Amino acid sequence: MKPVKVGLLGLGTVGSGTVNILERNSDEITRRAGREIQVVAAATRHLDRPRSCRTEGIRLTADPFQVVDDPETEIIVELIGGYEPALELVLRAIDNGKHVVTANKALIALHGNEIFARAREKGVTVVFEAAVAGGIPIIKAMREGLTGNRIQWLAGIINGTANYIFTEMFYAEREFGEVLAEAQRLGYAEADPTFDVEGIDAAHKLTILASIAFGIPLQFDKVHVEGIAHVTAEDVAWAEELGYRIKHLGICVHEENGYSLRVHPTLLPQRHMLANVDGVMNAVMVSGDAVGPTLYYGPGAGSEPTASAVVADLVDVVREFNLEPENRVPYLAFQSHFLSNDPVLDMGEVETAYYIRLMAQDEPGVLADVTRILGELGISIEAIMQKEPAPGAEDVPVIFLTHRVKEHRMNAAIEQIEGLPAVNGRLTRIRVERFDS
Amino acid sequence: MKPVKVGLLGLGTVGSGTVNILERNSDEITRRAGREIQVVAAATRHLDRPRSCRTEGIRLTADPFQVVDDPETEIIVELIGGYEPALELVLRAIDNGKHVVTANKALIALHGNEIFARAREKGVTVVFEAAVAGGIPIIKAMREGLTGNRIQWLAGIINGTANYIFTEMFYAEREFGEVLAEAQRLGYAEADPTFDVEGIDAAHKLTILASIAFGIPLQFDKVHVEGIAHVTAEDVAWAEELGYRIKHLGICVHEENGYSLRVHPTLLPQRHMLANVDGVMNAVMVSGDAVGPTLYYGPGAGSEPTASAVVADLVDVVREFNLEPENRVPYLAFQSHFLSNDPVLDMGEVETAYYIRLMAQDEPGVLADVTRILGELGISIEAIMQKEPAPGAEDVPVIFLTHRVKEHRMNAAIEQIEGLPAVNGRLTRIRVERFDS
Repeated sequence: MKPVKVGLLGLGTVGSGTVNILERNSDEITRRAGREIQVVAAATRHLDRPRSCRTEGIRLTADPFQVVDDPETEIIVELIGGYEPALELVLRAIDNGKHVVTANKALIALHGNEIFARAREKGVTVVFEAAVAGGIPIIKAMREGLTGNRIQWLAGIINGTANYIFTEMFYAEREFGEVLAEAQRLGYAEADPTFDVEGIDAAHKLTILASIAFGIPLQFDKVHVEGIAHVTAEDVAWAEELGYRIKHLGICVHEENGYSLRVHPTLLPQRHMLANVDGVMNAVMVSGDAVGPTLYYGPGAGSEPTASAVVADLVDVVREFNLEPENRVPYLAFQSHFLSNDPVLDMGEVETAYYIRLMAQDEPGVLADVTRILGELGISIEAIMQKEPAPGAEDVPVIFLTHRVKEHRMNAAIEQIEGLPAVNGRLTRIRVERFDS
Repeated sequence: MKPVKVGLLGLGTVGSGTVNILERNSDEITRRAGREIQVVAAATRHLDRPRSCRTEGIRLTADPFQVVDDPETEIIVELIGGYEPALELVLRAIDNGKHVVTANKALIALHGNEIFARAREKGVTVVFEAAVAGGIPIIKAMREGLTGNRIQWLAGIINGTANYIFTEMFYAEREFGEVLAEAQRLGYAEADPTFDVEGIDAAHKLTILASIAFGIPLQFDKVHVEGIAHVTAEDVAWAEELGYRIKHLGICVHEENGYSLRVHPTLLPQRHMLANVDGVMNAVMVSGDAVGPTLYYGPGAGSEPTASAVVADLVDVVREFNLEPENRVPYLAFQSHFLSNDPVLDMGEVETAYYIRLMAQDEPGVLADVTRILGELGISIEAIMQKEPAPGAEDVPVIFLTHRVKEHRMNAAIEQIEGLPAVNGRLTRIRVERFDS
């Protein structure tokens, strides 16, 4: 059979990784797919720069629209990132009747509903395995491997930078700022780390995972997002004393009255599989009512890990060329006319347990006041730990672990506690989850 | 669209789980598959026994051939297990032009080559996700999620009974026999545990995984198989002292001159992800040249976990109904005319590191003799540990950790060491792997 012709938008890290894999493993891929996959055209902003892949036989252009309009390309791989011109390019590729592979999580999370509607009209496929958790075939596992299940919850370490920072804070007992600076030096964090440390990147990915888990439309604006900058090295150490590790998780849960979608630092029991995912690695735990808890682990970023997912998507698209659209795997795992309208809950309605750290004057009565406030709001305490003040400091750190309670009630408690004269400054609240497995 | 009609062979643990999931999650499954999946006929040896699923609307029969010959059934799900009549039934279903879903690892490992050849002739699909690692979609991940990769190695905890036994030996510091007896009481081990504790069951699964990883024919008879009965509670404790956990692994590696396929107890570094898979859970780590190490974890057995994989296979088959056979995912991940003839290596040619435990008389010169033998054979020692004799015993346990060396050389060393007058009885050899991740 004649080779499948692919057009590439972007020849950066993932683009050159894709070219390299398709070349190096050409035999292996053809042995599996039954057809050769060939990059015939590629767009790059930097035509004159040295690249980390060979480009013999690839028509290079600085104009990505040329690749999208090229009558020879059957599949377009979008690796430019960002919203524009990526969105316009993807829609134009679809309008041209081409299938699309993309690694662009921001684009899918924010414009996926529109993109899939257009693709459905035109009868083409849009796939995006590389958009979440790099090389881990998590989207395939959920869209196709767990189809018999009602998904109950999903929790994932889906941002390698944040996980690298927490891992270093844990093992090296260093502060957030110091580790971040080092991560930037090592290339694990971007020069502008906002998307990673504020949880935006994880929220993009969680948006996609939640849709695929529950069959709901993509709703990025409904995700509760918290970053990691407020977690101190002391919190990490004290959590460990209590038997926990802190991880930055993307979580979605099928709650009683809807769904919770959230990204926040989370205390996990130390022996939990997710608690032991270190460094820049990613992992997603998915629990289905039939299968129980399952976990998918691997490199969440990088040139070839991400390109591995791109190539797997390419092989899938090639296989499905001759399949009528209604028999293909649905974009968001569920047939579009079967998407659910059940609401995403406001965070106030979500129930978790809490780690609370406050700084109090070392005088009698504070603990009594705090426990009274918690008690009046029906919040039960699992553990209290009072530490020595830091050298030279007067305030004593007090740590509470609570049982599960709805967040709006904890918010009320926090407001009252912060109003106590003996409590100084804002307190730190980190949610606690067990995800019993 | 009209429902897809399924015939079930076997209404035991997995069969009733399948019926239950298809009924309970009927909506969820239809939302994904776009079509309803209906069990219309089922064969069971025990027509009169109470069952753990409802059977309204299902034609029950004691004769499985009736289900296979039933013109209404489009897909046959084989859950009888064993070789006969399972093989005959599967071949007859294929001859009748029906697609087949099976959870039968022994059947696929030993007769898969024949079954797939027949299915290819008839243009039907045979899928078997449930045959390996229960509910974990490991076959899908490898066949479809890692298609861009040259798989380098794979190591898995693929027998829950063996893993339960090692887990208990580790945490509860109990002996093999005692834990096995308890596992049988709890239903984690069969009355006849041979297949589990001798590694046969794991070897069946490893045979399948190796074919899918490397594109080689199924070769069960080439797997080197070792059980777990020779590992003592002391070995487990001493391994821990050295920084390791012992796990029963199925391993296949793309070696320099071929492939190694083996099932044996293995020392793994304590912080390795696989070392932390406890109890009856399964996990498979797969390393590809592009993606790096990835891991898949979940329940490896049980009614609904296994049925979860059966249902996912059913949905896949339904989607591929209208796909020409050459565009379907190949049975063993690689197109049949592209299977590799590279050899499976004899265990003597395989290189690993070793944990060696011997019992020696407590006299000078033994260590010198053993280290001389190892040295003469070019085997370097990483650690030596001499323990106190057990109360009342005269012999001293001596433990060696070696660097990596080909097994035939270690065999020669073991023969010489066992011949030393001061060494009593046979020594225990457990292989050590790091699977750097």
